[in-house]
Amino acid sequence: MKNSDAPELKETICETVHESVPMDVVGRSVFRPDAPQKLTGQARYVNDLSVGGMLHAAVVRSPHASAIIKSINTKKAESMPGVAAVMTCEDLPGPNYIPLVKNDLPLLAPGEVKFVAQPVALVAAETLEQAREAARAVEVEYEELEPALGIDAGLKKDWILWHYQQFTGDPEAVFNNPEPGMHIYESTYTTSHQEHVYLETNGALAIPDNRGGFLVYGSMQCPFYVQKAVATVLGLDFQHVRIVQATTGGGFGGKEDAPSTPACLASVLSWKTNRPVKLIYGREEDMESMTKRHPSRTVFKSAVDKDGYIKAIDVHYYVDGGAFLTLSSIVLWRGLLHAGGPYKIPNVRTLADAVGTNTAPNGAFRGFGQPQVAFAADAHWDEVANQIGMDPVEFKRKNMLRVGDKLTSGQYLGESVGFDEVVEKVKKEIDYESVKALPKLTGRYRRGVGLSVSHYGVGLGANGGPNNFSSANVVVAADGSVVVSVGTTEIGQGMTTALLQMAAETLRCPYERLHLADSDTAQVPDSGPTVASRTTMCAGRAVVDACKIIRERMDEFLGDEEISWSESVTKCWIGGVQMAAQGYSRPGYKLTFDDKTGHGDTYEIYAWCANAADVTVDTWTGEVKVNKFVSGQDIGRAVNPVLVEGQIQGGALQGIGYTLMEEYKFNKAGHIMNNNLSTYIVPTSTDVPPIVPVIVEHEYSFGPYGAKGFGETPMVPVAPAIVNAIADATGLRFKHIPVTPERVWEALQKQKEEQAGVDQV
Amino acid sequence: MKNSDAPELKETICETVHESVPMDVVGRSVFRPDAPQKLTGQARYVNDLSVGGMLHAAVVRSPHASAIIKSINTKKAESMPGVAAVMTCEDLPGPNYIPLVKNDLPLLAPGEVKFVAQPVALVAAETLEQAREAARAVEVEYEELEPALGIDAGLKKDWILWHYQQFTGDPEAVFNNPEPGMHIYESTYTTSHQEHVYLETNGALAIPDNRGGFLVYGSMQCPFYVQKAVATVLGLDFQHVRIVQATTGGGFGGKEDAPSTPACLASVLSWKTNRPVKLIYGREEDMESMTKRHPSRTVFKSAVDKDGYIKAIDVHYYVDGGAFLTLSSIVLWRGLLHAGGPYKIPNVRTLADAVGTNTAPNGAFRGFGQPQVAFAADAHWDEVANQIGMDPVEFKRKNMLRVGDKLTSGQYLGESVGFDEVVEKVKKEIDYESVKALPKLTGRYRRGVGLSVSHYGVGLGANGGPNNFSSANVVVAADGSVVVSVGTTEIGQGMTTALLQMAAETLRCPYERLHLADSDTAQVPDSGPTVASRTTMCAGRAVVDACKIIRERMDEFLGDEEISWSESVTKCWIGGVQMAAQGYSRPGYKLTFDDKTGHGDTYEIYAWCANAADVTVDTWTGEVKVNKFVSGQDIGRAVNPVLVEGQIQGGALQGIGYTLMEEYKFNKAGHIMNNNLSTYIVPTSTDVPPIVPVIVEHEYSFGPYGAKGFGETPMVPVAPAIVNAIADATGLRFKHIPVTPERVWEALQKQKEEQAGVDQV
Repeated sequence: MKNSDAPELKETICETVHESVPMDVVGRSVFRPDAPQKLTGQARYVNDLSVGGMLHAAVVRSPHASAIIKSINTKKAESMPGVAAVMTCEDLPGPNYIPLVKNDLPLLAPGEVKFVAQPVALVAAETLEQAREAARAVEVEYEELEPALGIDAGLKKDWILWHYQQFTGDPEAVFNNPEPGMHIYESTYTTSHQEHVYLETNGALAIPDNRGGFLVYGSMQCPFYVQKAVATVLGLDFQHVRIVQATTGGGFGGKEDAPSTPACLASVLSWKTNRPVKLIYGREEDMESMTKRHPSRTVFKSAVDKDGYIKAIDVHYYVDGGAFLTLSSIVLWRGLLHAGGPYKIPNVRTLADAVGTNTAPNGAFRGFGQPQVAFAADAHWDEVANQIGMDPVEFKRKNMLRVGDKLTSGQYLGESVGFDEVVEKVKKEIDYESVKALPKLTGRYRRGVGLSVSHYGVGLGANGGPNNFSSANVVVAADGSVVVSVGTTEIGQGMTTALLQMAAETLRCPYERLHLADSDTAQVPDSGPTVASRTTMCAGRAVVDACKIIRERMDEFLGDEEISWSESVTKCWIGGVQMAAQGYSRPGYKLTFDDKTGHGDTYEIYAWCANAADVTVDTWTGEVKVNKFVSGQDIGRAVNPVLVEGQIQGGALQGIGYTLMEEYKFNKAGHIMNNNLSTYIVPTSTDVPPIVPVIVEHEYSFGPYGAKGFGETPMVPVAPAIVNAIADATGLRFKHIPVTPERVWEALQKQKEEQAGVDQV
Repeated sequence: MKNSDAPELKETICETVHESVPMDVVGRSVFRPDAPQKLTGQARYVNDLSVGGMLHAAVVRSPHASAIIKSINTKKAESMPGVAAVMTCEDLPGPNYIPLVKNDLPLLAPGEVKFVAQPVALVAAETLEQAREAARAVEVEYEELEPALGIDAGLKKDWILWHYQQFTGDPEAVFNNPEPGMHIYESTYTTSHQEHVYLETNGALAIPDNRGGFLVYGSMQCPFYVQKAVATVLGLDFQHVRIVQATTGGGFGGKEDAPSTPACLASVLSWKTNRPVKLIYGREEDMESMTKRHPSRTVFKSAVDKDGYIKAIDVHYYVDGGAFLTLSSIVLWRGLLHAGGPYKIPNVRTLADAVGTNTAPNGAFRGFGQPQVAFAADAHWDEVANQIGMDPVEFKRKNMLRVGDKLTSGQYLGESVGFDEVVEKVKKEIDYESVKALPKLTGRYRRGVGLSVSHYGVGLGANGGPNNFSSANVVVAADGSVVVSVGTTEIGQGMTTALLQMAAETLRCPYERLHLADSDTAQVPDSGPTVASRTTMCAGRAVVDACKIIRERMDEFLGDEEISWSESVTKCWIGGVQMAAQGYSRPGYKLTFDDKTGHGDTYEIYAWCANAADVTVDTWTGEVKVNKFVSGQDIGRAVNPVLVEGQIQGGALQGIGYTLMEEYKFNKAGHIMNNNLSTYIVPTSTDVPPIVPVIVEHEYSFGPYGAKGFGETPMVPVAPAIVNAIADATGLRFKHIPVTPERVWEALQKQKEEQAGVDQV
């Protein structure tokens, strides 16, 4: 395979693998059809698209974290060369909000700004340079206010965006009247922002369809969110707004709801000018204005009996929501339900609050509120186990959920809990006992091991409402080639491959005859978003449903005749067999949630994860080196094992960055100081340890081919595995991430001083 | 309503009518949703589309009707400024033919040319001017051959493209041993070419999808024909070729198969350059190279008994197919089956031949081989009635088909034959008896009346194979707006309106919430072509099917609750009701055809037509003025009466042009001498007589809401109505159309001379 010759590479990949794809394709690591064009630079991202008469857009953004807008003067900008339109919130055709949980995020700031880089005005011009120049010429007069930055500042203002709670048993009784030998412990855990660092920044291209509607291409996870948003701000029927996902360079949650903003900005300009308008965010603009992972604080108190059984928890989980609610309530909900960890806990009080602050709204990010609570809970239990003199893994095993157990929500676990097998395999693969047995706490390099566990409720759960349903449209052409259309999206995670594999096996059609259409809101009804690790399970179930309908019609018409796919299609075609179907997916179990108690059957099924890290801490530099990382998951069924492994490795690495490197630094005015990829540090190839994926398959009876979702799971409990390993290596228990070399070095110095103090005493 | 203010016009039309659209919308003349953008110049035809990096194409065409290509030198053209590619048939990626009945039409001439303007080579360049200049610089050396022009020349060469026949009873016995009083008469009728004169010429825009496939926009009737053609010449799976119909400025059959050529030409250039390529035909290029209505010759012999009953016919129908078969066989088939007219005829021999000649292939045109035979048959019966001293209408009534009768194919007519009612109403509306009773054959202005009849087999019939099936995809969005997708197309005929009306009534959804998507091959399986007046019936049946599925699911979920459409959708949406469906349409009756006998159940249902013309002949100028034209149809059900009336009026006018004005004039070398709209004469607004549409509704039990197709029918028997009226006015029986003023004047001179001769004797 020659790297120098891209087209040849393309052919080689496809043709070689085509020949060897068997009919029982689910469970095999077949090639991904979207790979060649991505590898060869042929894929067309939204910025690669251009149409005749297209204008370019630029956004005038707030320089302040909190301010009153006293006036906006657009006259100068309007008269500049090439300028086709300048818009403020006064010029919008419909309501000035992005529809989400609370509809509180304005499209263009209406009289006040609440975060730095909030859109204030808009320019469309013939060239990008002209648009940017005119944007700089828009004169905005502000009256600055004191911003609230950080959870404490938000709490001080009583700025609570959302609240959830869960009450189970009687935790107060446990804590107030502890049994003899009961171990009670409270500690607080905090986490920082994390940036998605998708390869491609946000962007959209809006084109008038000249029927009063608009066609919008964009980089996105959720075309139907964007459809609703654009329809709302333009005051149009959904079906007059057609959203097509362009090839998307990564999402990680950062393109869940966030792309609605650039899509709406481009669309209102397109409406204003009746011309196509392209808006592509620069990297700094994207980092400053778009969503990030919520910083958090978790106050975690527990009671463990003398035999090491968890008796009660009292948890208060705060997230920093930023200036508008957007999806914070939903992020909070997932955190609430996973707060205690995957354990049998009879007495629970969990409070969860999303706090408002003057930064860009924080939002969806792989794990969706779980990495924060998983860090708190798993590190907490690790510490508690050590405190009571138990091996942490033994402690976890003792309390861990199994088939027949109940979650803190009261939900009964009826099937597909491969947790024991996951923990067993991960523990073995990391060689837990050997590393644990190494001598600790001396020398420059100190090695330790940590193991963490997590469950993950697959899909949006009881809070998802109609977003839990999915649709697929499958069309078999006269020549036997097939188009599968879904409303969920390929964002690099491998959806295309997984769905086509399931379609191929269900239709009994050669894999290479299948083609996934661009995700397009005109083809299927709202399929729900591409989030919450739901795509393989939900969209997959819809695709299998559609394919089953078609295959059953074919079988009924053809009888027992054994003929090739192509012959079958020709016969059916001539015979008038209907060769297209809409498929649909509903959750396998009924979902419920009670707001007051936090009880209910909250997710249809759970994935189960254990991560383990073998680390070495350099006590001279404070650097933590991950020697080996093992991540095991019970995912029901691995539709494509290589893609599953890729997801596990990617998740683990993103978690390593989150644990050891990544954080935004704000100044007192609310400006991000490290708003680019030179100063915002993420893992590079030299930071990648050997990451060993472990796949466990306890099939889910309502999953397509037994599959559950899992894409986020590997990321969820990375921080505690590493932090536990650092504790094992150094005796230092970090309660804030990222655990940067500076923080390690500082803590080591403090430890040294304390030890010196102890020595002196 | 102000004409000067287009946007206001748009709003006025829509909003006014929106408010008044009731739920029982089928049968009402509601507004057409595609009208505003067409009226206001907003509609985007393929030439209005442009994308980034787009090249422009020009075609090198044959200057000869028949020649050997000795050499093609592209070097000079290749080196010209802006030229990205020059291609000949040597450079094609796949087989060099447009797939149709016989796959005989090459994309680029392979070593020989068979008609003037046949594509020989191709150029793509940065600008259209550069492409055209380079096309002129391609050097082609020809060896000229003698062309065959006209049916006789083709027959002389034994160049038969296709043959069909029908034998019923024993016509030989009737003719050879005539009963006493039997009237036997033979005559020959000929017709000329007719040009479609669609407002928009052919064109296509091909865009690489960067997944190895192509997206092609074009002006077309049949996206799936184009898909198959482009996939064939590129050697790709159908599903890697996505065809989307752009707004199309008329078709009339001229965009049935013909658009495959520009689409393939643009696509191979796009494949060669890996860039978008647009190819738009100029008017002269389009007129010279594209399909026209087949010229014909019909030798018609009949035997009628003493009571005026038709006993036998012996018909030989020839059409001039041009240089390649393309669709001539199918045009021929429809002619064969309708050759005798809509009568009970017990003894039949019909032979039908498509003859090859060195002109551009003739092809589909409203009526599809029927206007030619209808002219022959109806004029013949009119003449025979006069010969035997019967009123022609009485003669026609006596022999006409009714429920319970059989066609010459043996097909039994079980339902929906509203023929008597049509004839009765048309006769009354034209005031037949009064005009008939006027004094004839004297004075400068002579007035007469003629009535013609025809049946029309709806759809493609037994010869259509899988093209008889249709699909639809209906998607109800969360806000209650609806997208309907079909593979058939809006070409100005009103499909959008008719389908949305049926969808609205079936879903019980407000009409204005429905939206028809662009016809797109990725949404539904091959829906068959938009031809043969099949769209309302076939696509309509598929749309109703899909809507029924959705409505039934909604009803099942909602029970008897009486709530608004929007509320219903919201409830169903939250409840997980699947709100999308694929619908399908099959013919209501099984279709059969036997090649040897010409027998079978050839069409599922028939439309019934009577036309009547009241004309005045100016004997000084030879001009025929149509004073009034009445066209009546039994169409099963008028889904939208105003659109039906529009179709009737348009068909009648196109027939008037065909009868009185339109013909191509070729020189001896095979060049069209009148290849533009200054020299090819069509009716203008001053030529439009009062055209009175008469709608009769004998519902078809398998038609959607009882509808049959009828779009072509009004055009079919226009010529005989007028020619019969001219005969009534002047005594002159014209057996060739068009009946131009020159021909009338000449015939009048001849008549005068003959009468003078008689007077002298």
